[in-house]
Amino acid sequence: MSIAILGGTGPQGRGLALRFARAGTPVVLGSRDAARAQGIADELNVQLDGGAGISGKALRDAVAAADEMVILAVPYAAHDATLEAIRDLLPGKILIDIVVPLADGDPKKVDMPDAGSATEAAQALLGEAIPVVGALHNVSAATLNQLDHPINCDVLVCGNDLAAKEKVIELIRQLDVAAYNAGPAVNARCIEAITPILIRLNISKKVPFTHAGIRIWAPGA
Amino acid sequence: MSIAILGGTGPQGRGLALRFARAGTPVVLGSRDAARAQGIADELNVQLDGGAGISGKALRDAVAAADEMVILAVPYAAHDATLEAIRDLLPGKILIDIVVPLADGDPKKVDMPDAGSATEAAQALLGEAIPVVGALHNVSAATLNQLDHPINCDVLVCGNDLAAKEKVIELIRQLDVAAYNAGPAVNARCIEAITPILIRLNISKKVPFTHAGIRIWAPGA
Repeated sequence: MSIAILGGTGPQGRGLALRFARAGTPVVLGSRDAARAQGIADELNVQLDGGAGISGKALRDAVAAADEMVILAVPYAAHDATLEAIRDLLPGKILIDIVVPLADGDPKKVDMPDAGSATEAAQALLGEAIPVVGALHNVSAATLNQLDHPINCDVLVCGNDLAAKEKVIELIRQLDVAAYNAGPAVNARCIEAITPILIRLNISKKVPFTHAGIRIWAPGA
Repeated sequence: MSIAILGGTGPQGRGLALRFARAGTPVVLGSRDAARAQGIADELNVQLDGGAGISGKALRDAVAAADEMVILAVPYAAHDATLEAIRDLLPGKILIDIVVPLADGDPKKVDMPDAGSATEAAQALLGEAIPVVGALHNVSAATLNQLDHPINCDVLVCGNDLAAKEKVIELIRQLDVAAYNAGPAVNARCIEAITPILIRLNISKKVPFTHAGIRIWAPGA
């Protein structure tokens, strides 16, 4: 079951491609520039030295090649335009939105769209017939790309379609991370906004880490 | 240095009173009913068997008795009215707002005030001369009251006054928890909204815990 990662040539997309391919899921990177996507895919395959293959295509060809799930990993500025460009290809598929609406010029702030969050904006743009699932917002690109380390963060998954969320949770668990159903799409307003708080902590000199994540924790368990 | 906990007769307030008193900070519980506050304080002192004392007073007397910091731990429905009732006593003090705007009848949802969050609503109501610090939203009452267990969650602290935040972080660290500066008051929109996500996970049968918290985590550290 191939997945597509749109914006897959960016650091977050590359890290996810490596992790999913290593776990056995074929990945198609989608980019405006098909040749660039294939070039990055070639590099990643060398880095991976095994696992399922990574290929690169133009955006729409990547979506068409995905069996069921399409991950949107573009910068926030390209969020809506990318969805507009592929929406007619999405029926029958699940859109996994990992985009965080960071404020232009200040990654310590969100600049939420009128819909409330990127996930809700995507759902409104695509219509209810195409399930949108928000996930993977809080895992840093640096963490994803350190393949010799476990991810060690938990993933909060939200959306209005329970069956779609369960499929996405199953996909993410391939990466040996805990993924939890964190409720409906409206909760993306919180989940997306955790990322700039983590970026703030990473930038701060007062904490002992450089790529913070979050974990759900059970005191006294 | 005494602190006041308004709404201190509720489960969250009682747990915090026990934890702070055990750590050596005298606590004054504030309630609309002074006799009830003193009765609960007496019970807590028995449970504690040592540490700094816990006393109980009417709301305004509790605020007056606090040296510098007043914790607001009332139900959301009483948030604004309680602040109105004490605002003239607050100059020179820090208001620590731990209130989560849970939706009436559904603790899996927030119902944010027009100001964006309870912390921002408090700051707007009190004016910028009185620093409001949001904190301790995500630690469950059950966790606080299990005195034989460490708290084991991290605390995200937000507000617009850095010096006030640093004092609150120092106070919270008395409880042997990590507390982080999570940015300005606007970030309370995210931090307060984490609580209903944790409540959802607690209610869910799909997770291995009953009183989830969050931790900031450093993958690969």
